[in-house]
Amino acid sequence: MQPWRFIRITDVSLRQKIHALVEEERITTAHALAEREDEFMRLKVEGILECGELLVVALMDGREKHVFGRRTMPEMDLASAACAIQNLWLAARAEGLGLGWVSLFDPVKLAAVLCLGYVEVFYHRPMLESAGWAAREDLAGLVFENRWENVKRG
Amino acid sequence: MQPWRFIRITDVSLRQKIHALVEEERITTAHALAEREDEFMRLKVEGILECGELLVVALMDGREKHVFGRRTMPEMDLASAACAIQNLWLAARAEGLGLGWVSLFDPVKLAAVLCLGYVEVFYHRPMLESAGWAAREDLAGLVFENRWENVKRG
Repeated sequence: MQPWRFIRITDVSLRQKIHALVEEERITTAHALAEREDEFMRLKVEGILECGELLVVALMDGREKHVFGRRTMPEMDLASAACAIQNLWLAARAEGLGLGWVSLFDPVKLAAVLCLGYVEVFYHRPMLESAGWAAREDLAGLVFENRWENVKRG
Repeated sequence: MQPWRFIRITDVSLRQKIHALVEEERITTAHALAEREDEFMRLKVEGILECGELLVVALMDGREKHVFGRRTMPEMDLASAACAIQNLWLAARAEGLGLGWVSLFDPVKLAAVLCLGYVEVFYHRPMLESAGWAAREDLAGLVFENRWENVKRG
């Protein structure tokens, strides 16, 4: 199906408009997080203005006619785009480039904003873990055999 | 967030039940494809009964409370699961294992059925291309600069 569309943003004013959209949603998200609002606002959640390359990923037109593998799961086009992005992410990392996937915006058929480029440093641990936002789950709570045993988050 | 949950299916009767669910949807999809019904029914779209390992991927419980990065896009948990699956896919391929992602079922918080194992042969081209089901798109119609120029599918 190849539903993904990658748009390279080289127009500076367009980059600024995308940043403004994300900034608006960043503030709305912070409000929605209630008691963690201030903590959230201190996190680095995007690098739209400073990254080397800015990419927008969107889903194709005319998706309705693609029924194969998505009659009951139309969201498989997003899953496909996510796989393409993950390939880009791994390829970028292998080249020493960082990538940040930003999903803080009101989507209108938009799947992702990707900030790609050289970075000062790669985090030893996921940034949200270092910042104390969330801790990595133990695999034992994520991988099961035959049934889903619900395990309380630690 | 790590919303993905991987469930390894070792129970043979469970494997058979999953196959039955997929077979039911395979037939419904075929009907929905109208004039391509017979052609679709001849394609290999799953290997549930014969694959070495069968995995079911599901999304976590209690997703509602995760607002960060998905207030406007709750489907980001599926995107995250898709990235995890793509990592597994690449790792499997590097080990000489094939993986097939089956999405032919009626989902109830289920994201994917994965058929993993040794294969007789890796296709030189995507199977759906060799079988004449669909042709790979030219990158020029998928990657753009600054704006989305709609290009008719060839």
